[in-house]
Amino acid sequence: MKLYSYFRSSASYRVRIALNYKNLPYDYCAVHLLKEGGQQKQADYVALNPNAVVPTLVDDGHVLTQSLAICEYLEETHPEPPLLPAHAADRAYVRAIAQTIACEMQPLQNLRVTQYLKNVLHLDDETRNAWTRHWVQNGLVILERMVLESGRAGRFCCGDTPTLADVFLVPQLVSAARFECSTDPTPTLARIAEHCNNLPAFARAAPAQQPDAEP
Amino acid sequence: MKLYSYFRSSASYRVRIALNYKNLPYDYCAVHLLKEGGQQKQADYVALNPNAVVPTLVDDGHVLTQSLAICEYLEETHPEPPLLPAHAADRAYVRAIAQTIACEMQPLQNLRVTQYLKNVLHLDDETRNAWTRHWVQNGLVILERMVLESGRAGRFCCGDTPTLADVFLVPQLVSAARFECSTDPTPTLARIAEHCNNLPAFARAAPAQQPDAEP
Repeated sequence: MKLYSYFRSSASYRVRIALNYKNLPYDYCAVHLLKEGGQQKQADYVALNPNAVVPTLVDDGHVLTQSLAICEYLEETHPEPPLLPAHAADRAYVRAIAQTIACEMQPLQNLRVTQYLKNVLHLDDETRNAWTRHWVQNGLVILERMVLESGRAGRFCCGDTPTLADVFLVPQLVSAARFECSTDPTPTLARIAEHCNNLPAFARAAPAQQPDAEP
Repeated sequence: MKLYSYFRSSASYRVRIALNYKNLPYDYCAVHLLKEGGQQKQADYVALNPNAVVPTLVDDGHVLTQSLAICEYLEETHPEPPLLPAHAADRAYVRAIAQTIACEMQPLQNLRVTQYLKNVLHLDDETRNAWTRHWVQNGLVILERMVLESGRAGRFCCGDTPTLADVFLVPQLVSAARFECSTDPTPTLARIAEHCNNLPAFARAAPAQQPDAEP
């Protein structure tokens, strides 16, 4: 498999964790989101991924986009070890956590949105940072509540083995730290992330461990 | 089952289509997103859905949130008629279409974002409308390209039976029309939507057909 990734992209980070957790080797193809006006916008990459975003996974000639769709594909094609629980309601909870991150938080912090805020709306740094922190901090508080109220959390978001909820949570928490969000209101999430980061699959997927990492 | 919905919410609309398509009866519980400062923010609703968004589906005591997680749950618990194709790569394509809508388009047009643009950033109507149209119009062009380049489109996004790609596409096109986006660059999507809207499952889920519809 070949993964088109950017070290700092949280959506790429999710897929790196899933691949590692399932012990699937892959070639790392770095796509720099800032250099050369954004390598993701170059014609050969857009031919793979019309959205001009990372990640893209190529597996056996199949070109796969959207991090959650890729994770579901990996789960279906390589079911062991599983990243979804056995029962439908638990699976719905795990997917709801992942989608709260993928649909309510990350889309508002991502590069093309912050570029629009800067280049089209001409908002200053402080206003843009307040925007990002607002959506990410609010989202974390909601996630903490979802996890606690589910009654499902163990060492991880759903019991004592990792699921896609954790795969999505850890990259979001790394982004949150970069945006200087407070972790005070979300002790459960912080505790779960610590368990995750003790696992090699998660640790090896971290931005600083990637071949294209920058200081 | 009980569905908490708002007639104009595209995420609610997706779940209404999926329920209808699978012939699953449900009670409609209207949550007005504007009245009383937003009924979705009232404590009894937030206890069900900490995100304070619609939809929420309650099935046999299970409280389910996030439209795609709900659709996946319905697919798992009521597999016939299916809304995902049989093969993993086709399923990944269908989910990528759904997630391009759910993660790249809808989050930037939704109520709480446009309220932030208005109430916090104090942007005028024209600037807010340009924001919404920008993300939705761009997204439609990308979807058109994804569908065409996949080589999978038939009467619907993936072959000749509806899938979750269509379930997500139709509500997004209704929103796009409301935001006065042009359908000129997306003839394939328009053609697919016409096929969808000829099906009772889609037609009955339309905003104007809901008990809480307003002119």
